[in-house]
Amino acid sequence: MHKKLFIPGPVEVKPDVLQKMATPMIGHRTKSASKLQRDISEKMMKLFYTENQVMLSTTSGSGLMEAAIRSCTGKRAAVFAVGAFGKRWYDMAVANNVPADLFEVEWGNPTTPEQVDEVLATGKYDVVTVTHNETSTGIMNPVAEIGEVIKKYPDVVFCVDTVSSAAGAKIEVDKWGIDVCITSTQKALALPPGLAICTISDKALEAARKVENRGFYLDLVRLYDYIQKKDHQYPSTPSISHMYALDYQLDKILEEGLENRFARHEEMAKYVRAWANKHFELFPVEEHASNTLTNVRNTRNISVADLNKQLGLRGFTISNGYGKLKEKTFRIAHMGETTLPEIKELLENIEDILGL
Amino acid sequence: MHKKLFIPGPVEVKPDVLQKMATPMIGHRTKSASKLQRDISEKMMKLFYTENQVMLSTTSGSGLMEAAIRSCTGKRAAVFAVGAFGKRWYDMAVANNVPADLFEVEWGNPTTPEQVDEVLATGKYDVVTVTHNETSTGIMNPVAEIGEVIKKYPDVVFCVDTVSSAAGAKIEVDKWGIDVCITSTQKALALPPGLAICTISDKALEAARKVENRGFYLDLVRLYDYIQKKDHQYPSTPSISHMYALDYQLDKILEEGLENRFARHEEMAKYVRAWANKHFELFPVEEHASNTLTNVRNTRNISVADLNKQLGLRGFTISNGYGKLKEKTFRIAHMGETTLPEIKELLENIEDILGL
Repeated sequence: MHKKLFIPGPVEVKPDVLQKMATPMIGHRTKSASKLQRDISEKMMKLFYTENQVMLSTTSGSGLMEAAIRSCTGKRAAVFAVGAFGKRWYDMAVANNVPADLFEVEWGNPTTPEQVDEVLATGKYDVVTVTHNETSTGIMNPVAEIGEVIKKYPDVVFCVDTVSSAAGAKIEVDKWGIDVCITSTQKALALPPGLAICTISDKALEAARKVENRGFYLDLVRLYDYIQKKDHQYPSTPSISHMYALDYQLDKILEEGLENRFARHEEMAKYVRAWANKHFELFPVEEHASNTLTNVRNTRNISVADLNKQLGLRGFTISNGYGKLKEKTFRIAHMGETTLPEIKELLENIEDILGL
Repeated sequence: MHKKLFIPGPVEVKPDVLQKMATPMIGHRTKSASKLQRDISEKMMKLFYTENQVMLSTTSGSGLMEAAIRSCTGKRAAVFAVGAFGKRWYDMAVANNVPADLFEVEWGNPTTPEQVDEVLATGKYDVVTVTHNETSTGIMNPVAEIGEVIKKYPDVVFCVDTVSSAAGAKIEVDKWGIDVCITSTQKALALPPGLAICTISDKALEAARKVENRGFYLDLVRLYDYIQKKDHQYPSTPSISHMYALDYQLDKILEEGLENRFARHEEMAKYVRAWANKHFELFPVEEHASNTLTNVRNTRNISVADLNKQLGLRGFTISNGYGKLKEKTFRIAHMGETTLPEIKELLENIEDILGL
């Protein structure tokens, strides 16, 4: 039996979208490949409210996160982490000998604009990394407000991980001043994993050109220059199957309407948060709780593993707490093509299993 | 109209294999994911005649080539290049500040065991990179013989790019002493692009553990340790669609029989070489001509672009010469699921178009 995924990626992919993964192959050095990749770029620009160049990378989102922090840091990166995925930027910097400092908050809390301002006022940093939506804690950071603060520091490149929020929450790249905005296919975009996407500003690009030792496969400058020279083709053979599916799915997303899509995610999030508050507690502070995933504090001391096993027998899967939060929280993703009736069905099954 | 691909990747993918790309998603941290990835590893071990660990990377083959040269070079890498893809290893080393020297031959010639021996005798190198099958020139290097020479130097890690030969020619990883053997899905494996595969020996792994600054996403040690710890799961979300298709296609390949498959490739290669010798000339020296791709010298001074346009109208695509060989050669791939009757049909159409 297929278990319906309510986990923060991979998510359920609609059958017609999955079918696009089975499109016959074309050469990656053809006009058809250029057109496909150009079309995707134009649609992604709408999704991200940006005029910046869109670039694809045949990697997971982590690939482009590493690409961004390594390619753009000339001086020192300030890594703001509100959970495991935020800290990953720091691990990537360390693994590449990129100077970086880690600024963490207690799990469940957001990065604040004030915290960022204070750190940048030292003048030590030329890159800031922030996680928009942290799936380990269920926090959605106030990136718009953080972006306002960063505008006071015109030499700072602002890199944002929107892996688990893009297409599930409004992200206004140009208005918020995001220089490198990174996402991947397997979360709110509701596609299979295997492709990452970013936007890059002229500022980020100019900064990166001055950085030596950017590597090869994950060098943002090399990607950018190749796209310009070869009409949206890529230096290495990309995942054409994902591109067909992404192009098709972006049409469906734009057809639903971005505002409608974001409202649907918000409605699901509010419903799950109300449910969590009724039967358990929210793990993150509520005013910064995510609209794509809810992290529920296990105040009833249930066995999350057992609950998930029971749910599995009924055709559902949720996520246990992440890392140190295992069994202390459980996580319900409400992203991608998931609908409120499906969320209600899931929660009714949880209530039934737990006798709530 | 779909154009049948006779280019050195992407290649034609059979409809039933393409259909596996549309398999519904599962979580990548599940027992089902571990089993899928373990099954792939066991089948790839047969294909590569090895007991070494198999690792997957959601990148193109270039991603793992960079991973290998960066992760394994502690002292200095000797890069042997017989064309554009061989030289790419060198560009990757330079882009990562990895000490390396480039040893090139005139295009159309192989790397010889004697050349490798002479270079290694200097004692300057701890990594050797060789391209098994160079699609820019049509050379298949004598990797078995090169491997024999390298066995004289027990501290040297032998990295081989088998991107365009694996599953189309016999590659005996253990017998030939290959420490890191790299391939990707979109060539003779006859799958869509988007996933790379390598084997890694204990020697390569031990060497890599001593190397600092290996990066994150492309760090072979990190990949290896994660696989061991988490039963064949991967640090980042992998391309599950490609894994389903690869697992299925490996069954089909093993069902065909490896020796049968290699013989089929050899038969097609001999036929195309005889045809090339009759109507044109071979570009590479014949005793080292590739069994998966034939590079034909354009001795008749035809317009290769026009020929390909005419072929396109009939539902076929071949490749122009690569880089500096554009219009000076043309390339016919005979790899993956392509059969001799299909090759004959292609060549008859070329003869018809050119009035041969």
